[in-house]
Amino acid sequence: MKNNNKIILNSTSRNGENVGEAHKAWLRYPPLDPNQAKEYASWCGEIVVIASEPSPMIANACEELVNGIGSMLGTTPRVGGSGNLPRYLRIAAGDLAELQGAVETAELEELGEEGYVLKTVREPGRAYIAIAGRTDRGAFYGAFHFLRLMQSGHSLDDLRVIERPAAKLRMINQWDNMDGSIERGYAGRSIFYRKGKFVTDRKRIRDYARMMAAVGLNAITINNVNVHETETNLITPELLPSVAAMADIFRDYGVRLYLSVNFASPISCGGLTTADPLDPEVRRFWADRVADVYRHVPDFGGFLVKADSEFRPGPFTYGRDHADGANMLAEALRPYGGILIWRCFVYDCLQDWRDRKTDRARAAYDHFRPLDGKFADNVILQIKNGPIDFQIREPTSPLFGGMQHTNQVLELQITQEYTGQQKHLCFLVPQWKEILDFDTYARGEGSTVSKAATGELFGRQLGGIAAVSNIGDDLNWTGHLLAQANYYGYGRLAWRPELTAEEIADEWARITFGHDPVVVTTIRRMLLDSWNIYENYTSPLGVGWMVNPGHHYGPNVDGYEYSKWGTYHYADCHGIGVDRTVKTGTGYTGQYHDKVAARFDAIESCPDELLLFFHHVPYTHLLKSGKTVIQHIYDTHFEGAEQADTQVDAWRGLQGRIDSDRYASVLDRLQEQSMHAKEWRDVVNTYFLRKSGIADEQGRTIY
Amino acid sequence: MKNNNKIILNSTSRNGENVGEAHKAWLRYPPLDPNQAKEYASWCGEIVVIASEPSPMIANACEELVNGIGSMLGTTPRVGGSGNLPRYLRIAAGDLAELQGAVETAELEELGEEGYVLKTVREPGRAYIAIAGRTDRGAFYGAFHFLRLMQSGHSLDDLRVIERPAAKLRMINQWDNMDGSIERGYAGRSIFYRKGKFVTDRKRIRDYARMMAAVGLNAITINNVNVHETETNLITPELLPSVAAMADIFRDYGVRLYLSVNFASPISCGGLTTADPLDPEVRRFWADRVADVYRHVPDFGGFLVKADSEFRPGPFTYGRDHADGANMLAEALRPYGGILIWRCFVYDCLQDWRDRKTDRARAAYDHFRPLDGKFADNVILQIKNGPIDFQIREPTSPLFGGMQHTNQVLELQITQEYTGQQKHLCFLVPQWKEILDFDTYARGEGSTVSKAATGELFGRQLGGIAAVSNIGDDLNWTGHLLAQANYYGYGRLAWRPELTAEEIADEWARITFGHDPVVVTTIRRMLLDSWNIYENYTSPLGVGWMVNPGHHYGPNVDGYEYSKWGTYHYADCHGIGVDRTVKTGTGYTGQYHDKVAARFDAIESCPDELLLFFHHVPYTHLLKSGKTVIQHIYDTHFEGAEQADTQVDAWRGLQGRIDSDRYASVLDRLQEQSMHAKEWRDVVNTYFLRKSGIADEQGRTIY
Repeated sequence: MKNNNKIILNSTSRNGENVGEAHKAWLRYPPLDPNQAKEYASWCGEIVVIASEPSPMIANACEELVNGIGSMLGTTPRVGGSGNLPRYLRIAAGDLAELQGAVETAELEELGEEGYVLKTVREPGRAYIAIAGRTDRGAFYGAFHFLRLMQSGHSLDDLRVIERPAAKLRMINQWDNMDGSIERGYAGRSIFYRKGKFVTDRKRIRDYARMMAAVGLNAITINNVNVHETETNLITPELLPSVAAMADIFRDYGVRLYLSVNFASPISCGGLTTADPLDPEVRRFWADRVADVYRHVPDFGGFLVKADSEFRPGPFTYGRDHADGANMLAEALRPYGGILIWRCFVYDCLQDWRDRKTDRARAAYDHFRPLDGKFADNVILQIKNGPIDFQIREPTSPLFGGMQHTNQVLELQITQEYTGQQKHLCFLVPQWKEILDFDTYARGEGSTVSKAATGELFGRQLGGIAAVSNIGDDLNWTGHLLAQANYYGYGRLAWRPELTAEEIADEWARITFGHDPVVVTTIRRMLLDSWNIYENYTSPLGVGWMVNPGHHYGPNVDGYEYSKWGTYHYADCHGIGVDRTVKTGTGYTGQYHDKVAARFDAIESCPDELLLFFHHVPYTHLLKSGKTVIQHIYDTHFEGAEQADTQVDAWRGLQGRIDSDRYASVLDRLQEQSMHAKEWRDVVNTYFLRKSGIADEQGRTIY
Repeated sequence: MKNNNKIILNSTSRNGENVGEAHKAWLRYPPLDPNQAKEYASWCGEIVVIASEPSPMIANACEELVNGIGSMLGTTPRVGGSGNLPRYLRIAAGDLAELQGAVETAELEELGEEGYVLKTVREPGRAYIAIAGRTDRGAFYGAFHFLRLMQSGHSLDDLRVIERPAAKLRMINQWDNMDGSIERGYAGRSIFYRKGKFVTDRKRIRDYARMMAAVGLNAITINNVNVHETETNLITPELLPSVAAMADIFRDYGVRLYLSVNFASPISCGGLTTADPLDPEVRRFWADRVADVYRHVPDFGGFLVKADSEFRPGPFTYGRDHADGANMLAEALRPYGGILIWRCFVYDCLQDWRDRKTDRARAAYDHFRPLDGKFADNVILQIKNGPIDFQIREPTSPLFGGMQHTNQVLELQITQEYTGQQKHLCFLVPQWKEILDFDTYARGEGSTVSKAATGELFGRQLGGIAAVSNIGDDLNWTGHLLAQANYYGYGRLAWRPELTAEEIADEWARITFGHDPVVVTTIRRMLLDSWNIYENYTSPLGVGWMVNPGHHYGPNVDGYEYSKWGTYHYADCHGIGVDRTVKTGTGYTGQYHDKVAARFDAIESCPDELLLFFHHVPYTHLLKSGKTVIQHIYDTHFEGAEQADTQVDAWRGLQGRIDSDRYASVLDRLQEQSMHAKEWRDVVNTYFLRKSGIADEQGRTIY
């Protein structure tokens, strides 16, 4: 039996210190219960590898299996045997003949490029578990699935799993800057950069690639969509060797590298005086740069662009539209199979707050809908889930279902910019589920966002899901340890959107903290309650914002009310909310398909939780819940602050059941949240009591 | 006749470029009208110097006279003659015998250390103008006064001026940091420091010393009261040579150098584990540091300390009080004649906004009044003009008149932190006049703040006035050119508080822009109106704040309402204001002497402009003006924004009458102000319309 410490790869240390359990995230593989271990060990003595050619991904899959199994069972499988043991593991890629009998042809055809089969195959006198894909990528993901089954305590005796990812592109956007900062990052500094340079110790990046692979993510942009001066040069010979080194790390874990690029690069680093997408020299500049990129990174994914948005340069400067801009870059990428991802987060960020006609919620649709069908085949539009900006509650963007002839990906935000900045617990999977399951009615009932984003709904070749990362160089990756669940859940959902929030919460809790039912039940409940709790004590009924400007942490009801950002609630002494109806408001509701539009447009059918997003109502308006708006505000804020306390109490119940470091670090965050939730409660309630003059029915203390 | 360009010293250039008229500030000395020049020239052919010993200050006085006269008249006086011309200038210091006949003994005795006589003396066959003091400092200031008379077009034929400064200490506080930034600076970067070091090109600093001298200022702290890491070392051997070089520059212009020090220096740079003022090692540390400072700067002025305020360290950490802290430092300085200036800006900056009992306005008095009489003789308390923080309108601090047995200086803020940040025109001299003339009734009627601060009221030996500088390395020193008038006016008032705002505005306008009556009248009017205009469109009726947190620029009515800074207006749908009365409020009014207390305490006698500082009233409360509070808010905000436009129009009327560079730069700022005043108007009016629900009587547009 080998020494456990020796075979666990994922205990990256900094300056020799033990990085602790939190750092291992979902790759912990702690020793299993001896009975369970014994049962599993009977399958895991040997790994037979069947591959038509040497493959780094298969090698990595074997390494993961060896180390994960070794760590969990205390005994390490031998790799490369010929299957002489009565039971063994067989990992197979590509060479389908070898799988005959184990997997049916029909099953294999469903697998695609990334799918796999896990199957317990019994033959006379022996048995094996097949981990098989049509490609090495498929087998690789199968290996992680197999390890997850062991982590979750699943029986291996009768496996019959066939999976392929729902989304072709399952992407992470790192908003990392080369100075080492991370835009909207709440978990330390960048793991990629320090002081304008790439880091030299890349162990941490490899750990990260493993974490991505384990949850099935297959694409990453390694720099912020706001591409600053230094980062503009990532596509130049000076920095491309370092980019290539990054790509090398991620490649062997199935993750393709993309870069965010500066639309003004032809000027910034090309010596041109224009970035006009129709200018031949500009096109030549990009063709040259792309050629150079592919010389360094042959399987480079493509570019991500934020253009004509929040002061970023773009085609508008030259009187061109987004299709002109995107297609020009796509053309440069096309010869190499690269794709161009263009963000739809475009709006007037110099709005006059006095102007009630202009509606930021309308902006993305108004900009992009008229261009539907004009984008090249290797262009993907990246659409934020909601029309505003990652608020705790927003309706789904009408571009889903609205753009029918254009590739698209759904953009989510794992980093908790508006949802507690990883000081507050806010498990976002339930929110993402609502978004993915939202029915756009674009092709009648069942036209979900999930289907629109993957391309299934309109038969698009490209599609998927992207999300802004929440990781940094904090030892536990995410600042708040429980925020790891958001990253994990994102990956799982991107692969398999039909997973429920409950399933994901349960799975993550087990993998991260083990199978003590008290622990699992408590953490699952804490995660599942947390979105609702956070919403309770922050901005009510879908109206959004009410945060401090700039950093976006903490309550400030009027924080964005008189600003140029297009984010208003219009509260006065009579009522609150934004009239976005067709008849009397901004007309935003008209951007949805009829059935959805009608539901949002009529105050009677508009769901309570989005009421103030769509309607301006008096404080005395009666919600479907039977409460007035003002009483709802008071009640939810008192309740939310109490619930935040309850989360602390729940966690305290786990003391002694989980290791003290992780226990203490989470307790610390929950206590901060509990204190801060009271600040939210009191600021919001006081604001509305002062403004409305309407007392709380229950006479609780408001200041 | 010499070439003018050659003899003007004050045209410091940067990289060889012409720094322009704006840079010369009040040391421009442009050529005078030929008739006027001819008349003056008859007096200015020769300067006879009478001094008992060689004096750098007399030398500098002569240089100023030579250059200033040369520039104005086009002909340069000869220095060091023996008075053979029929008319000449006689500058005399110390040697009183030489002044017999010119100045009466009684007059001389009034002069003190810094006073002077300017007198036209006629003797048979000849006449001279005496510029004389009992010290070289006196004569030096006399020379600047003489130049000012020439700049202002005053006749020299019958001079009879006897002046001495009202305030002994006339100090400037630079809030400069060694990284080159200036806290609350709005005119570029520091002229003293760049990137953690003293600047090497010190011409600009010498220009600044001349500007200070010309308005009679005699003391300067060259670093921020918030003493950061690098600046803590200003009292160490590493940096003292540079400090000494600064002192050398200022010394010859009559300005004594002081340093802001970090109370925690014994820990930060002394290797001790405590900064306890009663600890013998701490006392020894300071004694050593002070001895070292005086080795480098024999006439060093002393220390300025911000302690136990806004997270600065102080004696509270060790259970000591402000007297313990201040006296310990004073003891170290005493052997060298140094003084210790201790700021009274002490309050709870972690206040709970829910707590309506704690009142930041009370804090300074509550902290320091009980210590009256406990401070050493070489301690001076530096007291901000108002109890809060340099707002556009505050009552005067009750410490003036409250502290009777303690030296004190009044602290003003020239830099326009809360008064438009030198983007808006706000001539502060009228505000300062109100402060200086405020009657504390501490010794019955006539017990003005001016007399309390200078020490006259309670017979204190030390006293004076200090102000936070508004200059930086912008070519025109102050960003907004017209903001030079604030610096100029501060110096003039510190010397002679009985000057009127009108006199100062007129004098500055003439010196800066010449004698065109259209120019002088317009600028004087613009300056004198500007405080009222700024108040009109910003926070009303003395309630203060309503600015964006942090940088303090621009409107944000609730910006500080739910903060920890103790700065609230308590506006709700019924009314607004802070109840600081004795009976129902925080009791702050009780800190004043009876007559003042009674006036502020009763809503009937409280002046309108301070109503909301002292009382919480309904929006429908009738002001003495006959308007309701809400209508006053609407009216002043509409009016203020219109007035800001009027300032632009007034300035446009000067096109062609002043040089185009200065014209354009001021126009630019006024236009920014005009635009921004509308933003203020609309935000404030909208806030109050939304909150009160009370319509504007005149039906103007509110959003």
